[in-house]
Amino acid sequence: MIRVPAEQQGVLSEAWRACVGTGRLELALRRDYQDSLTLLQKEIGFRHIRGHGLFSDGMGVYRPYEWQGARRVHHSFTYVDQVVDACLELGIRPFLELGFMPGELASGGQTVFWWQGNVTPPSSHREWADLVRATLTHLVDRYGLEEVRDWPVEVWNEPDLPDFWEGADQAAYHRLYEVTAHAVKDVDASLQVGGPAVSPGADEGWLGRFAEFVERRDLPVDFVSRHAYTSGPAQPVPFGTYQTLAPAERLLEQFGAPRRELKGTSLAELPVHITEFNSSYRPDNPVHDTAFHAAYLAPVLAAGGDLVDSFSYWTFSDMFEEVGVPTALFHGGFGLLTHRQVRKPTYHLYAFMARMGRDVLARGDDHLVTRHPDGRVTVLAWAPPRTDLHTLRLSVPVGDTERGTVFLRRSSVDEERGNAYTAWRRMGSPRSPRPHQLDMLHDAAEPGRSHLRLAIEEFRVDVDLTLQRHEVTLVELSPVIEESPDWWDESRILGGGGSG
Amino acid sequence: MIRVPAEQQGVLSEAWRACVGTGRLELALRRDYQDSLTLLQKEIGFRHIRGHGLFSDGMGVYRPYEWQGARRVHHSFTYVDQVVDACLELGIRPFLELGFMPGELASGGQTVFWWQGNVTPPSSHREWADLVRATLTHLVDRYGLEEVRDWPVEVWNEPDLPDFWEGADQAAYHRLYEVTAHAVKDVDASLQVGGPAVSPGADEGWLGRFAEFVERRDLPVDFVSRHAYTSGPAQPVPFGTYQTLAPAERLLEQFGAPRRELKGTSLAELPVHITEFNSSYRPDNPVHDTAFHAAYLAPVLAAGGDLVDSFSYWTFSDMFEEVGVPTALFHGGFGLLTHRQVRKPTYHLYAFMARMGRDVLARGDDHLVTRHPDGRVTVLAWAPPRTDLHTLRLSVPVGDTERGTVFLRRSSVDEERGNAYTAWRRMGSPRSPRPHQLDMLHDAAEPGRSHLRLAIEEFRVDVDLTLQRHEVTLVELSPVIEESPDWWDESRILGGGGSG
Amino acid sequence: MIRVPAEQQGVLSEAWRACVGTGRLELALRRDYQDSLTLLQKEIGFRHIRGHGLFSDGMGVYRPYEWQGARRVHHSFTYVDQVVDACLELGIRPFLELGFMPGELASGGQTVFWWQGNVTPPSSHREWADLVRATLTHLVDRYGLEEVRDWPVEVWNEPDLPDFWEGADQAAYHRLYEVTAHAVKDVDASLQVGGPAVSPGADEGWLGRFAEFVERRDLPVDFVSRHAYTSGPAQPVPFGTYQTLAPAERLLEQFGAPRRELKGTSLAELPVHITEFNSSYRPDNPVHDTAFHAAYLAPVLAAGGDLVDSFSYWTFSDMFEEVGVPTALFHGGFGLLTHRQVRKPTYHLYAFMARMGRDVLARGDDHLVTRHPDGRVTVLAWAPPRTDLHTLRLSVPVGDTERGTVFLRRSSVDEERGNAYTAWRRMGSPRSPRPHQLDMLHDAAEPGRSHLRLAIEEFRVDVDLTLQRHEVTLVELSPVIEESPDWWDESRILGGGGSG
Amino acid sequence: MIRVPAEQQGVLSEAWRACVGTGRLELALRRDYQDSLTLLQKEIGFRHIRGHGLFSDGMGVYRPYEWQGARRVHHSFTYVDQVVDACLELGIRPFLELGFMPGELASGGQTVFWWQGNVTPPSSHREWADLVRATLTHLVDRYGLEEVRDWPVEVWNEPDLPDFWEGADQAAYHRLYEVTAHAVKDVDASLQVGGPAVSPGADEGWLGRFAEFVERRDLPVDFVSRHAYTSGPAQPVPFGTYQTLAPAERLLEQFGAPRRELKGTSLAELPVHITEFNSSYRPDNPVHDTAFHAAYLAPVLAAGGDLVDSFSYWTFSDMFEEVGVPTALFHGGFGLLTHRQVRKPTYHLYAFMARMGRDVLARGDDHLVTRHPDGRVTVLAWAPPRTDLHTLRLSVPVGDTERGTVFLRRSSVDEERGNAYTAWRRMGSPRSPRPHQLDMLHDAAEPGRSHLRLAIEEFRVDVDLTLQRHEVTLVELSPVIEESPDWWDESRILGGGGSG
Repeated sequence: MIRVPAEQQGVLSEAWRACVGTGRLELALRRDYQDSLTLLQKEIGFRHIRGHGLFSDGMGVYRPYEWQGARRVHHSFTYVDQVVDACLELGIRPFLELGFMPGELASGGQTVFWWQGNVTPPSSHREWADLVRATLTHLVDRYGLEEVRDWPVEVWNEPDLPDFWEGADQAAYHRLYEVTAHAVKDVDASLQVGGPAVSPGADEGWLGRFAEFVERRDLPVDFVSRHAYTSGPAQPVPFGTYQTLAPAERLLEQFGAPRRELKGTSLAELPVHITEFNSSYRPDNPVHDTAFHAAYLAPVLAAGGDLVDSFSYWTFSDMFEEVGVPTALFHGGFGLLTHRQVRKPTYHLYAFMARMGRDVLARGDDHLVTRHPDGRVTVLAWAPPRTDLHTLRLSVPVGDTERGTVFLRRSSVDEERGNAYTAWRRMGSPRSPRPHQLDMLHDAAEPGRSHLRLAIEEFRVDVDLTLQRHEVTLVELSPVIEESPDWWDESRILGGGGSG
Repeated sequence: MIRVPAEQQGVLSEAWRACVGTGRLELALRRDYQDSLTLLQKEIGFRHIRGHGLFSDGMGVYRPYEWQGARRVHHSFTYVDQVVDACLELGIRPFLELGFMPGELASGGQTVFWWQGNVTPPSSHREWADLVRATLTHLVDRYGLEEVRDWPVEVWNEPDLPDFWEGADQAAYHRLYEVTAHAVKDVDASLQVGGPAVSPGADEGWLGRFAEFVERRDLPVDFVSRHAYTSGPAQPVPFGTYQTLAPAERLLEQFGAPRRELKGTSLAELPVHITEFNSSYRPDNPVHDTAFHAAYLAPVLAAGGDLVDSFSYWTFSDMFEEVGVPTALFHGGFGLLTHRQVRKPTYHLYAFMARMGRDVLARGDDHLVTRHPDGRVTVLAWAPPRTDLHTLRLSVPVGDTERGTVFLRRSSVDEERGNAYTAWRRMGSPRSPRPHQLDMLHDAAEPGRSHLRLAIEEFRVDVDLTLQRHEVTLVELSPVIEESPDWWDESRILGGGGSG
Repeated sequence: MIRVPAEQQGVLSEAWRACVGTGRLELALRRDYQDSLTLLQKEIGFRHIRGHGLFSDGMGVYRPYEWQGARRVHHSFTYVDQVVDACLELGIRPFLELGFMPGELASGGQTVFWWQGNVTPPSSHREWADLVRATLTHLVDRYGLEEVRDWPVEVWNEPDLPDFWEGADQAAYHRLYEVTAHAVKDVDASLQVGGPAVSPGADEGWLGRFAEFVERRDLPVDFVSRHAYTSGPAQPVPFGTYQTLAPAERLLEQFGAPRRELKGTSLAELPVHITEFNSSYRPDNPVHDTAFHAAYLAPVLAAGGDLVDSFSYWTFSDMFEEVGVPTALFHGGFGLLTHRQVRKPTYHLYAFMARMGRDVLARGDDHLVTRHPDGRVTVLAWAPPRTDLHTLRLSVPVGDTERGTVFLRRSSVDEERGNAYTAWRRMGSPRSPRPHQLDMLHDAAEPGRSHLRLAIEEFRVDVDLTLQRHEVTLVELSPVIEESPDWWDESRILGGGGSG
Repeated sequence: MIRVPAEQQGVLSEAWRACVGTGRLELALRRDYQDSLTLLQKEIGFRHIRGHGLFSDGMGVYRPYEWQGARRVHHSFTYVDQVVDACLELGIRPFLELGFMPGELASGGQTVFWWQGNVTPPSSHREWADLVRATLTHLVDRYGLEEVRDWPVEVWNEPDLPDFWEGADQAAYHRLYEVTAHAVKDVDASLQVGGPAVSPGADEGWLGRFAEFVERRDLPVDFVSRHAYTSGPAQPVPFGTYQTLAPAERLLEQFGAPRRELKGTSLAELPVHITEFNSSYRPDNPVHDTAFHAAYLAPVLAAGGDLVDSFSYWTFSDMFEEVGVPTALFHGGFGLLTHRQVRKPTYHLYAFMARMGRDVLARGDDHLVTRHPDGRVTVLAWAPPRTDLHTLRLSVPVGDTERGTVFLRRSSVDEERGNAYTAWRRMGSPRSPRPHQLDMLHDAAEPGRSHLRLAIEEFRVDVDLTLQRHEVTLVELSPVIEESPDWWDESRILGGGGSG
């Protein structure tokens, strides 16, 4: 029996929902994407959203042309505005990632992904700076400085990987950073700019050398960013990948890396954003669809906020095309939601987190206990990976009532409950489910719910939890105000013994 | 083990959803009412809706006035049109009940209900006929004859009870019927008119004497109507009532009464509409809120269509004010839905019925088995009242596949599952629940869902059902088309053994 | 030519939209009402809403009962919560009027209106105080003190009229005020209470004697309230009333009355709320439906905020039943909107006001000029009543551009434009319009719109306005940022001269 | 004065709305696209929708892979299903165009458009046939044969142009047609297949040789298709094109071409579908945005149905990317609607057509008169291109009332009214309008409306129309049923002469 203290031990950081990842921004034009984002914002409520491809050709921003013999450039925001309008309307703000390179501004032809993002440096740094300035200026004009000041601006994505930045050329990245940071600050000094958005594979020197560079050149930098993943090498099958996974604590270690590596530099005190994290970095690894995945990430969500200012789940929706158009409803996509808004177990983990209170009362290997300002206590608990049954007993303080009762509501996802993936497998893995199958999948994705009443003894209740394999469970406790009248007699209700 | 035949035994009549009852028509102007009706129509889909008070003062139809010394009458349809427009927009048609009496046309002051419906004969039968004609003419003008022809017109409500018709005066009712039936047919001979809408307490002579009267006077009559209830005398408590209940088969007996009583008369072959039925006739008997109630009515819904052309559950929503404004969310109202659209167990019984197929394969004391045109088989099963565990084993034919598998989805309501009432009691019976409590009640009202895969043996699967106390369960069987690829290997998904 | 100063002359008070009136609160349960409120809040955005009948029987709040021989009282908030939830969801807050008397708490049987509001003092002031306390306590529990503190609480309605308060008994009102004010402050001292909500017919002594009474008894009072109307005696026709109207400035005189009358008393500095105003106090005077009405009220809206803290248009919707259920779409109702959301000219006056800027640049007999924070200038102009053509020339400052152009958009309502009433008359005054007629009425209610470009000369443009009979017009000026490219050649667009 | 006959002269064919064009199908995944389609279907109601790119890579249908050394192909319908589901939900059905070539099935690398549709023949006709069969089989499985039978299947697009079909190779097209037609009929003989979808530039022999080929090979062919455009050579400017236009009657000539050319062949009696038509074939010609364009096309819509079974406006929305992402709200796109649903004049032409009756009473160079089943008469009239004022006088029969009055409603678009393009130009042509500018554009796009009452003389009214430059106007006439009461006295309404 773990005795949860009645006194607050700390505050639950909002870092877990400070940001979420998305497929390339062009996808935000889609209806399914926006339907998913609507649901997400209603039930979870992320603060920012970050994705690739702001400047990729599909967004149509950089538009050179000839007129009367001269070359000129339009900067066009037709789609940028549609995307940003949609996000703001749903209460989520851009975390701007500046990239990839417009085809006509690129110095080379190397691309990444099925959708061919160009990953080469600009052929003209002056034109790149114009593009950045024009974009930020437009956003400030349209949405107001007050608003845009709250959108971090990150320079490029994973420049330490040759797939994402031609030759993983550090000097070229530093130059891009310098030009970009100045361009951003030209628009307004209060805009936040940062980088270097390195991958978990970045050698240990990257962050340090970035610090050294910005220090030496006295460049503006408002935050530091890095990614985190824990999967092993990809073992491909058609339209899918299997991988090993390191234990979840490795994610937390990676979250801690920037502060460790930047200790002693002038960047040491800056906000740190993990601008992407997940178990596997593959958008076709079925692990993302499982209850295991929710149980695996639960301790990361519970603790990550101690280490960084944000850690952004990569990504909220399976509307994602880096390896092509998905060929089946469940295909191992990163999404918290499948196409057509079927909620995966990890979605529920986030939705459960969104119901936790501000004040932390206790935290352990398998649980987190919080209290809301109005006194309601909530418990998030999770089973250790690959364990069949797991028990947890908590003595929970429930406020200033010595006696009385508490209403306990429990919501669970595991291998059976809140698990559309299991249902889908049993249905025969229909690649493009029929409407009636989709309805069943939506039902199957509902968490299991149960409730009971507990007696308070000396300001506390005992909460005994048995967790099924890969269960993540949310327990919500509210004091009962009994309004049932004196004359209520359950035994007289059912009309028994009647002869009519 | 019950062996369900593979051959169709009959067709499932739509009588169970041919009509549903409602609180007085004026309530149809309300948002909560329309929200409930929207949900109802989406998930169940009734054909007609019937309620009191079309001509009561709250609808503002009969509007006499003086001008230049003469008395004239406006017939005003401001609210009638708003009500009918809303219904038709939601795909449900009026089953018109003509009554009660406009205050200014009434011959006396007797009223019924908290909302004071006047139950006295008209002071002028000529003006009453004008009112009926004007109303039907207006409806035909606005909605078209094709449409209105499909709306049965019933003359008054329960004239055999002195509470609903002054003195339960049969001769006065017959006169009203005569005047009304002629007025209806004056508008168009194809409109359907009927009565006498008697209560279950009507002495055995009422229907016969009605037949005799219409025969003697050669009056038009297109259908016969009656009500059915099974509760004993009311045992009042504040804002509530307890009652005994007769067994559910008494409802079916009552359904059969009109045909038995009219045998040999000229009305013998007419359609019979049970224009109201329920267990208790009290809108404040908590039995309506229970799982027991769903299990009690399940055999009635399964079999009622053999006896009558419609039987109309009284009523779809707790938005109902015959004994005053409800003082608590759960208050024993008739509604399938509470205010704010919490679904009661009996709602789910109807929603389960709406998922049954057209062809009946088997019917028993505790089950109904049907097949859809596309071959899917569905089973509705229910526990006998007040039994703790009940088992049922069925061998179900699943079509023309000798081998293979079937996906089984089971949805259940009982004392715990699909039962917001139980949750509400545990919460302390909050009379006006807070938003977060309402959310929990909506969740608690979701049926329990489970699914599994069954192996087909010789074109059949064995379905073993254990039913909890007062469980009503829906089992849906669909053949599995296996699309899972060769390379799928569940054991490789969870990333086990990885060192990252 | 009027030269509008470039410098701000003052700030446009929000008093004009601080509050709006409504039919009795029970009507807020209705769908049409909520649809109207939704539109209103989207296009105008009132802050508070005030209506009668919070405690009338239709709301079902006061619920005495007997149990075990004792009399007890439930205070029930089933409908209050539905009403307040709906308002808050639409961004409008209650301005609570405490009244009328629950039938079972009344000392007498006198009622007002078709819907029979009881206007007699409580039979028990203790139970009345309990009712008030229970209601405020419930609201604070449900919505939070922070929220409810912003809802003024007004004691009763027009107690100076014998129709609204038995015998117009001043002493009885003072007693009610005392008991009520204490009950409100018992719940929380920060709640705002006030009165005496007198009619324009109140003799001059009422306000002074109210001040004297609260002073003498040292009673809490946070604001003073009064009503304002300008119509003469009612000349009834069936379902309608004609009346003479005093000039609109009489409304402003009435707005000023409380401060004049309370000068020198301890109430002199309190906020003043005109909790009802309109031209005619009759809900069946067709003047409310006309363009004349908008032109008549325009100067009142433009200037009222100088005199009082709020002036509340009585009422936003024709969903209103004081003289019975309306018998025709246009029936002279108070509403800014008819049933089914047809916008009347006065609605547009309010919608135009909602587009005005914060800073007042000029104000005249026929115009108001304002500027938005972003520099856009707006002009509201109106024709004097019963004048066929009216001209107005303004030289308007448009910011810091010496040259360039301005885009002018003009929106007008008059006898033809933005005038569904005129269209409805031409259609034959259909009492219950068919759907296609309603569509046409909605179209006919759209303001006339036109636009043009004006050249800036020395930071100014000349705006020449000719107003039609009873026109109210909104002129919106925005500087043009010309983005049209060099190569645009309108003459080449239409494909002229082509031989294909 | 033109005397419109009272007798029906014919029936207005639905060919004008039998089909509408769309940008490539992938765009149907977008929210803005679906919002536009929703509006379109509500106000116009097309029957079918046709666009390119069903098999292009963005739809992700053809998905070859290797497994255990063998090459296999998945046919994947993730996006196809999302697109078709969305269309059917909005009441519009696919007109299937089979093309372009999946990259991995292509025999060459030639592409068309910014979005790179591959226009080369299949590298394997067997695999192409598999693809066609798999697609049709899937659609029939999902939507039912009854439904899919109503979706014409067209083989490729404009194979007579080397830009759309490598080398405009006729023999290769014939081979593709043969393989495809057989594949379609393999799925079900009742599916409709046709071609050859030739451009207006097809030399006269194409259709004849197609007929000859299918005859010789005895191939199934259920309809013949062709395109129609009237613009001259493109005169490019940056992001735009100017062109001359042939007179509109040339479009009608082109509509007639297939029947003329196929006379005497076995295809002579087949349905003819003009699967694309417009003035200019360029998606960046500003003519599409003008009032001129509506007036130009009005006679085509009025008469086209005499010549063909469908003529499909290319396209309904500016969400279209053949020459790249649009750089400004108005950019000369084909759309009836801009991005964000601003309605263009040609949209209104279609919306006016949708209000016309079934029976044609008269047709002229500048007008079309029809009658609805309920007797209402509607007139569509248009000004000749480039004429400043145009008058038209009609004597219109209004049914069986000799006397009485008629309500006339007139809706107009011209250079000022219903013309957001003009407003946008005056605003400075903002490329990405701000929200308040968009609101003004939506307002500016509303047709001008007016109404009046006309006296009937001998069953007729005189309708005098003066049309402004490029006006298209809809006149709707309904008999007035006068419900205005005796006592209505407009002169007493305005409260005149009052002293209050």
